[in-house]
Amino acid sequence: MQQLKRLTIGAVLSIFSAQLLAAPALITNEQKQTATQLMQTALKSDLGMEIVTSLTTEIGPRLGGSEAEKRARDWGLKLGESLGFDKTQVEEFTMPFWDRGHLHISLTSPYQQELYGTALGGAAPTKKSINADVEYFRDIHALAEIKDNSLKGKIVFIDGDMMVKSQTGAGYGQANQRRRIGWQHAQRGGASALVVRSVGSDSHRFPHSGMMSKDGEKWAEIPVIAISNPDADHLRRLHNLGKPLSISLHSESKWKGEVSSGNVILDLIGSEKPDEIVLIGGHLDSWDLGTGAVDDGAGIAITTAAAALIAKLPKRPKRTIRVVMFGAEEVGLLGAFAYAKQHEANLNNHVLATESDFGAQTIWQLESNLNPQATLLIDEIAKILSPLGIVRGGADVPGGGPDIIPMAAKGVPTIRLNQNGRDYFDLHHTPDDTLDKIDPDELAQNIAAYAASIYLIADSDVELKP
Amino acid sequence: MQQLKRLTIGAVLSIFSAQLLAAPALITNEQKQTATQLMQTALKSDLGMEIVTSLTTEIGPRLGGSEAEKRARDWGLKLGESLGFDKTQVEEFTMPFWDRGHLHISLTSPYQQELYGTALGGAAPTKKSINADVEYFRDIHALAEIKDNSLKGKIVFIDGDMMVKSQTGAGYGQANQRRRIGWQHAQRGGASALVVRSVGSDSHRFPHSGMMSKDGEKWAEIPVIAISNPDADHLRRLHNLGKPLSISLHSESKWKGEVSSGNVILDLIGSEKPDEIVLIGGHLDSWDLGTGAVDDGAGIAITTAAAALIAKLPKRPKRTIRVVMFGAEEVGLLGAFAYAKQHEANLNNHVLATESDFGAQTIWQLESNLNPQATLLIDEIAKILSPLGIVRGGADVPGGGPDIIPMAAKGVPTIRLNQNGRDYFDLHHTPDDTLDKIDPDELAQNIAAYAASIYLIADSDVELKP
Repeated sequence: MQQLKRLTIGAVLSIFSAQLLAAPALITNEQKQTATQLMQTALKSDLGMEIVTSLTTEIGPRLGGSEAEKRARDWGLKLGESLGFDKTQVEEFTMPFWDRGHLHISLTSPYQQELYGTALGGAAPTKKSINADVEYFRDIHALAEIKDNSLKGKIVFIDGDMMVKSQTGAGYGQANQRRRIGWQHAQRGGASALVVRSVGSDSHRFPHSGMMSKDGEKWAEIPVIAISNPDADHLRRLHNLGKPLSISLHSESKWKGEVSSGNVILDLIGSEKPDEIVLIGGHLDSWDLGTGAVDDGAGIAITTAAAALIAKLPKRPKRTIRVVMFGAEEVGLLGAFAYAKQHEANLNNHVLATESDFGAQTIWQLESNLNPQATLLIDEIAKILSPLGIVRGGADVPGGGPDIIPMAAKGVPTIRLNQNGRDYFDLHHTPDDTLDKIDPDELAQNIAAYAASIYLIADSDVELKP
Repeated sequence: MQQLKRLTIGAVLSIFSAQLLAAPALITNEQKQTATQLMQTALKSDLGMEIVTSLTTEIGPRLGGSEAEKRARDWGLKLGESLGFDKTQVEEFTMPFWDRGHLHISLTSPYQQELYGTALGGAAPTKKSINADVEYFRDIHALAEIKDNSLKGKIVFIDGDMMVKSQTGAGYGQANQRRRIGWQHAQRGGASALVVRSVGSDSHRFPHSGMMSKDGEKWAEIPVIAISNPDADHLRRLHNLGKPLSISLHSESKWKGEVSSGNVILDLIGSEKPDEIVLIGGHLDSWDLGTGAVDDGAGIAITTAAAALIAKLPKRPKRTIRVVMFGAEEVGLLGAFAYAKQHEANLNNHVLATESDFGAQTIWQLESNLNPQATLLIDEIAKILSPLGIVRGGADVPGGGPDIIPMAAKGVPTIRLNQNGRDYFDLHHTPDDTLDKIDPDELAQNIAAYAASIYLIADSDVELKP
């Protein structure tokens, strides 16, 4: 990646020189020069790595609603103050707290073997240890066909396939059905517990956690456990050999009442249009198994560092740049819904919103779906980002990131700086999501792209609303 | 790897044709033709994968001395019978049994975080849970300098460095000192427990298990735990920030008295010199965290499949080919010492011995350190193996493999078919040592090399002794 850094710095310089001669009207030469300087500075800066190193090391895992997430909010406030933001605050909200607790799961027939599993978010505990025969289903479609109460006393196992690695993360939503709603069929069948193949693209012995979906207002009344892909392969091979399987399971995961969480808000107040807000951010909470480096310490580092570089410019951009460190994303976008509700009255002041929450690999595409004039602005920004290896992308934008969904649903315009997600689902929600998985140069490329594009949007007079 | 398979089959054919014209005296044209056919058959055969799939799936993890290892011996006998070996037997021995039991280890200061650890072989249990301050040592050399009784009430952490990946596994012995004898210094210092950075070349959240060394006849009297490389990185970063560390630890690992183990012995009886034995093998036991695919299901599969292909030839080679599935290797080469003792009287009939116990990646080098005539034979064999990508290697042979050490010490000649070990210490002794890590084509290349070379040695009249 050292090579990328050198190449891109060189390319940034040459593009800048070439475009000085024939600048389009939507971006001034001075703005372009500033954006280019921001990119160069970002590519040479260690700030992003310093932020994500500090968050993952000094705070560690930070489950939504936990004491650790509170420490992370204090950390975020201090960070914002030290980096020169004009205004820093926490907006609190309340939420139900689910705690993973201790789990033990092992194969007991045809022989004793430990399985590497973890409870899925929202799962009920075992009242006492369960040891039951396994009913094998090749996928969730097979399970969906069962009759009510036909699985009494069984532990259901939903197999499936390992996710294919892809740049875009395609396939996650589909594979995730067994994690999201598998329990509804297993519970309808009267099963004692559900075990599912992890939703991930790795063949390591790590389970992937993640939240289940409610059925209306109801959470699962049975324990639901994800096991690693190699463990699922093992069960499949044994099943295919005709071996009767049984599993022993003890899980303490449960709901523990209402707690506090919050969103950390860091503002660079706009110099001309302070009420117009360009919102970027990531989520501050993480799953508890890893230290939340890739998901989403990286997003916090990328967006905070990008804004911090803009803060060092001699003058604030015209519009306000707001970094939101959302709370309790993993457990149901709770910070995002709280933000959209708490800011309902002034969401029409949010001229644009986007989130970094897809790891720390390089950004390869800038997508937008805006009005014609705004589209031209984004086209010009894409040209400025092109030395970073970023191409202009299509029109179908899925909401600007998970935490942007609630405000996008209320009309806030969005763009996406799409990251390469090829390795993302190797690490996603596993114990293996740790700092060593982040490449500093790839992180710096993200910061360069955010700094330049967000600066240009914030300093623009172009209207981004439909 | 499909490409390798096609290329090597083609290359085998062309080398064979070329050498028909000028065959050296030590190997006949007929022998060369047979060896070449064995290689071609091996590269196209699924037998090796079938064996390692069956062992890891139908038996699973098989700690030395466990009930699972007994099931593995029964499996080995049946396998030998089904593959046409002339004689199959188990030679039993007794051994002390160490059981890992349950472990819980977490960081408790500066905050609560789970650590991914495992007890090292031979470690004592915690009498009750320990929660103690951590004394950090950058490496074992720093720990070795402490004064007796200067670490009372502390948990010692020995850091170190992640192993560098290498083809030969260089660096393992040196890094392994903290695992082997670190406890002796910690115990001398009066520490309550020892935690060490895992000896491995991966940056995944898996601890690497492994046996400690005795101090004379004494095993450790304190708990000793290996933690994953990312966890060790985390502790190092916190230590470097000046944070006081404390750890909570509960471990049930302990010695549980004498049990039975055994070596499975499968013979192809020689057609002319049945008393002369060419011994190959692997070890049947595995660490309990994974399913022992790479260590050493692969070695069992490679050597058994190679001999099984030779068993299908119209005529047995002149000398006896013996496959030994050694028991209890991981816990101190116990099967190897038992074999050398039980066969003490006829070890001089063992004309050569070698073991496959370095994973499942391709063989790249054939090494020997034999008498001049035997060296010429091995030179010729290396030429025949060269289409597989195997080069002739140096003279310094470290004993033919771990289980060969005791018999090599008593004068049995050895060779090594050196495997590429680049990925070996990513998986070694971790939960991640599972079937999916084996590439079928790389495994087949190993079998091709073993089948050809062992056939040629067993069918030779060349004396291999000094």
